[in-house]
Parts: sequence; C-alpha cells; structure tokens
Amino acid sequence: MAEFAPLRAVALLALAIPFVSAEGACAEDVRAAVEAGNRAFVVAFLRGDAPAIAGLYTDDAQVIAPGAPVAAGRAAVEAFWKSTIESGVKDVQLTTQGVEADGDLACETGTVRLVAADGKVSEARYVVVWKRVGGAWKLHRDIWN
Amino acid sequence: MAEFAPLRAVALLALAIPFVSAEGACAEDVRAAVEAGNRAFVVAFLRGDAPAIAGLYTDDAQVIAPGAPVAAGRAAVEAFWKSTIESGVKDVQLTTQGVEADGDLACETGTVRLVAADGKVSEARYVVVWKRVGGAWKLHRDIWN
Repeated sequence: MAEFAPLRAVALLALAIPFVSAEGACAEDVRAAVEAGNRAFVVAFLRGDAPAIAGLYTDDAQVIAPGAPVAAGRAAVEAFWKSTIESGVKDVQLTTQGVEADGDLACETGTVRLVAADGKVSEARYVVVWKRVGGAWKLHRDIWN
Repeated sequence: MAEFAPLRAVALLALAIPFVSAEGACAEDVRAAVEAGNRAFVVAFLRGDAPAIAGLYTDDAQVIAPGAPVAAGRAAVEAFWKSTIESGVKDVQLTTQGVEADGDLACETGTVRLVAADGKVSEARYVVVWKRVGGAWKLHRDIWN
C-alpha cells in the first residue's frame, strides 16, 4: 500500500484545506453565518423588535455605542436597541467588509448606514466580534464610531 | 487499578481546565501577551516611536479611529500614530477589561485614557482583535469611541 501514500496525503490535504485557510477555520461558512445574522438583525430592527435583536447577541454581549454607556448583558443590549428604535430610525443597512474566524471566535469589519427620523443619513464603521455558542454564531462585542 | 480511576479523572480534568475555560484556549497566557503588547505600545508611544508601534500590528491591520479614515495596513497604521504623537499627546494609559481567545484570534475590551497637549484628559472604550502571527500576538483590528 506504500505506493498510495502520496495520493492519500493529497486527499488528506484536500480535506484539510477548508480548515487552514488564511482567514481561519471554515471562513466561508462563518461569513455566511455572519451575513445571515446581519440580515436577521435588520429584519428585526425594521419591525421594531428589540427582543429579537437581543436574541442575536450572546448572554454576556457588550454593545459599545458612541456617547452611550456600555450595554453589557442581553437585557441592557435589548434596552439599548429599544431606545434606538424608539428614536425613530427609518432604515438601517449593514455591509460586511471582512470576516476572519478561528474556532468559536470571528471578527467582522463593516459599515452601517442609518436613516434617522428626520431623514438624516449617517454612516459608521464597526467591528463585531462574533462568538459561536451552542453551534450558533452570536454578536458578542459590537462597537462603532 | 479501577479504584484510582476517579483520581485519574480529576488529574486529567485539572490538566484540561486551562484549555477549556469559558474564556477560550489558554486564556491566561493570551491575556498576559495582550497586556505585554499594551505595555510595549505605551512605551513606544511615550518615546514617540511610531515605527515601533506599527510593529505591534499585523501587516494587514486596521485602525478605525473616530473621525479619521480607516488606517489599513502597517504603513497607514504607522502614519496614523505618527500624526497622533505629533499632536502632542502627553500621556496614554491602556486598561484591559477582558480578553477572550480561541486559536489564533483574541478579543480584548478596554479603556484608553489620553492626556492631550493642552492637558485635556479624554477617555474612550476600545475593542482590539488580536491575531497570533508566527507565534506572536499582534493588534489586528483596533477601534474605539
């Protein structure tokens, strides 16, 4: 069987490649999960559903918004988004720039575009650290400026 | 030997604990590396050494500072810190609040306290995503507000 060893090595390598890419483990799957999470965020936001938004975060998540105290823990995260929704934001768009993952942690960079109650458009850059909990990717640290 | 199995299980568990803590793999070691990186950052900053600061970042790092374009890549990171140093900042203090790590990625939350040229003190909250490259932990994404 020794003559098959190189072929076997190639087969093993092919199996291994998705797990050792420069972007980390299964980067494409993680990016898809992150983008699905962001779509769920926007849908929940636009229907004014702060509990659903908070459900996308880990239990011990932190939202670090400019000019606001750190919202630590899911209840505080829900209160933060409830208050943002009640401020009358008309539209929110999230655009993922990049995702890198290793194990149960992933780092996303992106931009968020908000249309305020008065129609004023603002754009911010964000970093979200996602954490896989019980098999599901959740927002764990969320900061923008 | 069967009567020793529970003891052996305890011994194995004790060995395993550093690798399966809630904070991720070898969290204490990563936190120590992060804090050492932050000390090196402050030392380099206070001696006005922008190249040394940039050397603490990955090649493809991003510094996302409020009110400034994203500094992407080490040359841009160096230029950003050079300009900040030249603004006359007198003191900088970094305080790590928490570190979570998995594999080659780690997420730090903390606060930064700056004393500007005019003595005005400002404080910001930050998230830094650290990445292990060639065995060394480097700042990879750096954002504050």
